[in-house]
Amino acid sequence: MDTRVPNIVVGRLPIYLRSLEHLAEQGHGIISSHQLAALLGTSAAQIRKDLSHFGEFGKQGTGYHIPYLIVQLKRILKADQEWEVALVGVGDIGHALLRNRDLPRRGFRIVAAFDSDRDKVGTRFGQVTVHELEQLAQVIQGQGIQLAIVAVPPAAAQTVTDALVAAGIRGVLNYSPIAVSVPDHVRLQQIDPVTHLQHMTYYG
Amino acid sequence: MDTRVPNIVVGRLPIYLRSLEHLAEQGHGIISSHQLAALLGTSAAQIRKDLSHFGEFGKQGTGYHIPYLIVQLKRILKADQEWEVALVGVGDIGHALLRNRDLPRRGFRIVAAFDSDRDKVGTRFGQVTVHELEQLAQVIQGQGIQLAIVAVPPAAAQTVTDALVAAGIRGVLNYSPIAVSVPDHVRLQQIDPVTHLQHMTYYG
Repeated sequence: MDTRVPNIVVGRLPIYLRSLEHLAEQGHGIISSHQLAALLGTSAAQIRKDLSHFGEFGKQGTGYHIPYLIVQLKRILKADQEWEVALVGVGDIGHALLRNRDLPRRGFRIVAAFDSDRDKVGTRFGQVTVHELEQLAQVIQGQGIQLAIVAVPPAAAQTVTDALVAAGIRGVLNYSPIAVSVPDHVRLQQIDPVTHLQHMTYYG
Repeated sequence: MDTRVPNIVVGRLPIYLRSLEHLAEQGHGIISSHQLAALLGTSAAQIRKDLSHFGEFGKQGTGYHIPYLIVQLKRILKADQEWEVALVGVGDIGHALLRNRDLPRRGFRIVAAFDSDRDKVGTRFGQVTVHELEQLAQVIQGQGIQLAIVAVPPAAAQTVTDALVAAGIRGVLNYSPIAVSVPDHVRLQQIDPVTHLQHMTYYG
């Protein structure tokens, strides 16, 4: 039944998972859909409806068993495995991502980085060496990397995205403040602070 | 009727607005809910239902008039005015945000920056001077700033958020890879690359 799940529902599952993991870290074992809804600013009906696409995860009146629901959501999102990620652009955002320990802790390991700046090529961040852009296809195909983060200036974002798609990348997370296009078989997500700020100014 | 609009619907409006602005830049004048849905990976019914909370924006069979819908969404989101933003943390992410021209172009101007590092205090980025953290309340209250971006290491995120709330901030956009808490009267958004990556690995 997975093929019928609306994309918008899929997008909410990682938010539920993050919130449940936070609750588990705080020592909580059980939570009702009403409590979870209050934490997330949504409705209990919405959460129950979203989860019902994937099975039966809670009993009426007893709430959700947090560790169990975490395991199930991780399985659904394929977050129970480690994913290798390519990073293009080792500027400010790229640096921050290379130093971000939350990414590997939650299953996403940046294993290759690329930059067009010759001064950055060859520098190392932990296990990761910065390659020149010309090596992009070779490294990505050689390591079978499926996910990439684009953190380049806006003018370069589409060219870099096209090169990633040509190299076989299946999912692109775009940090550049510009819309990029990908073919239908490639997933695209954008980090856009303005959409988050506008969500808040609505209430302002 | 605005008070009844679910938070989750509000959160989708900035995504619609961004997509419509992109279409307008490309020279499009009219779009059907089906075309917009295809661009966004959602359904036409969802878009129509979301917009129906705020009025009647398109006629059956003729589609949406893009410039008109942009004006209306900007009004609803209060994106038709300029918002002043405080930035706490002038590390990699903070640097990137200070240099991000997309933020002011879309109505969000960083007017004050703060860092605990004495070496950074007093440095300037365009019109913005980096203040010491101790000046946070004074500057924010003095300028009447309502929005803040937190881009500090995880260990400092909650303390900084508490200081922002105490200074009167109404909305916090958190870039730190850690969950922070705010009181009910303050809006909170988090930039979390893992949730975006997990949205894509679902399909992987």
